[in-house]
Amino acid sequence: MKIGIIGLGLIGGSLGLDLRSIGHTVLGVSQKESTCQTAKNIGAVTHATTDLKLVAQTDLIFICTPIHYIFPTLQQLSEYLQPTTIVTDVGSVKTPIVQQCTTLWSNFVGGHPMAGTAEQGINAAQNNLFVNRPYVITPTLDTPPHSVQILADLVSSIGAEVYTQYSPEVHDQAVAWISHLPVMISASLIDACMSEPNTQILEAAQKLASSGFASTSRVGGGNPELGVMMARYNQEAILRSLQQYRQTLDHLTHLIKTENWSSLQETLETTQQARPHFID
Amino acid sequence: MKIGIIGLGLIGGSLGLDLRSIGHTVLGVSQKESTCQTAKNIGAVTHATTDLKLVAQTDLIFICTPIHYIFPTLQQLSEYLQPTTIVTDVGSVKTPIVQQCTTLWSNFVGGHPMAGTAEQGINAAQNNLFVNRPYVITPTLDTPPHSVQILADLVSSIGAEVYTQYSPEVHDQAVAWISHLPVMISASLIDACMSEPNTQILEAAQKLASSGFASTSRVGGGNPELGVMMARYNQEAILRSLQQYRQTLDHLTHLIKTENWSSLQETLETTQQARPHFID
Repeated sequence: MKIGIIGLGLIGGSLGLDLRSIGHTVLGVSQKESTCQTAKNIGAVTHATTDLKLVAQTDLIFICTPIHYIFPTLQQLSEYLQPTTIVTDVGSVKTPIVQQCTTLWSNFVGGHPMAGTAEQGINAAQNNLFVNRPYVITPTLDTPPHSVQILADLVSSIGAEVYTQYSPEVHDQAVAWISHLPVMISASLIDACMSEPNTQILEAAQKLASSGFASTSRVGGGNPELGVMMARYNQEAILRSLQQYRQTLDHLTHLIKTENWSSLQETLETTQQARPHFID
Repeated sequence: MKIGIIGLGLIGGSLGLDLRSIGHTVLGVSQKESTCQTAKNIGAVTHATTDLKLVAQTDLIFICTPIHYIFPTLQQLSEYLQPTTIVTDVGSVKTPIVQQCTTLWSNFVGGHPMAGTAEQGINAAQNNLFVNRPYVITPTLDTPPHSVQILADLVSSIGAEVYTQYSPEVHDQAVAWISHLPVMISASLIDACMSEPNTQILEAAQKLASSGFASTSRVGGGNPELGVMMARYNQEAILRSLQQYRQTLDHLTHLIKTENWSSLQETLETTQQARPHFID
């Protein structure tokens, strides 16, 4: 297949490496000439330029830009493409993107590969990044089933675990729970600790923090731009999760305040038993 | 040195292994005969019985029982001991224990080895568990400095990073921030996700949860008894942290609600920069 990739960062570059390794032709586009050169050097693309026209004759295009460039990129692209070209994206929020893009390009299929590393950029690209990782494809009632199938087969061929049964809205509320809410509650943990006015307590907290704090604060200490993007593009679902979270936190606080240890025990038993349903 | 260890679980057993390996005589006491036998078999103790009198002639005793048995154990012990015997504990909360125990035994020194694994019990005991891990010793104004020094030297000799400068109160508020608060906010995350009424969203969340959710939910899915003990014995400090945490979470929620993306960006930059001060 002749495949275009717009945006040669961690995800775009890694897709290129894997797709080329199974025999596809990969045409890459980046805003930076130096990124195009690196992508060629590491073998992530067959050719790469800074000119979008390069991908005009492809069968399928992955838009791997930051979320806010996805729709503008499709707008520019749509002038060159043939109607048979399938266009997909890799944004972590789907409802607003799928709505906008499907209206413009009927052969648009929303996608979200749930893979990543702490690193970013073409130099972080790696082979087999998607193996056994969820890759969610979110068709609407209007998405051509044939195009969904082609994309599903393609990402399945690079080892991803493909899900096609969730709507953009279900996807967005699910990732609000398991990805975006954790960022906000984890960031608030760091923020709250930093607000400790007693300097000796703050110093002791900083010196003694170990694996429990490290785990719980990990995603709250991540990329700020990414956190803001989650909140902007998935605002409604995040707010819904935050509201519900605040209620469960208030309930747990109430149990501690009223010394209702048996109910606290029950709650913690429930969470202990529930976690393996998320993490296997 | 002749050392007693009461309670042969993960911590007691691991202390025994390390202390014996550097030449000390270790006398162990457990409520269960089978645990005594295992402790002997793995080499964690020189001798072990179910009778507290075994440790009557020791120089220093570690009480490694669950928190609520520490004071009752010291009460029983105090009938057999010589006044020169130093008694310490390994409880994760210090203020109530140090208050009670120091009143009864002037040669009591509170301690908290901040080491552990997900496993419990004598079968989880391991060599070098304390190497490069914080070991907090919390003297009061009345604690004999000589006894503090002996304990500090001993745990330092098994590789621990010893802190003796924090009072029980400073220790307790610091661990509320970095250990107990994380458990409560992490448990509330799991609890909130489970409250999702839409079964398709809940199913998607469970299938798609990955490393971000795994990290943030880890300590909330831990031992319920331990969580209740933290809350019971460190109630005041935990409630203080929870109250402050709720304010920072409300502030962050407000920024998302009012679409104040520049302030959200600043907050997430602050937390990104602050985290390395806790985790090095």
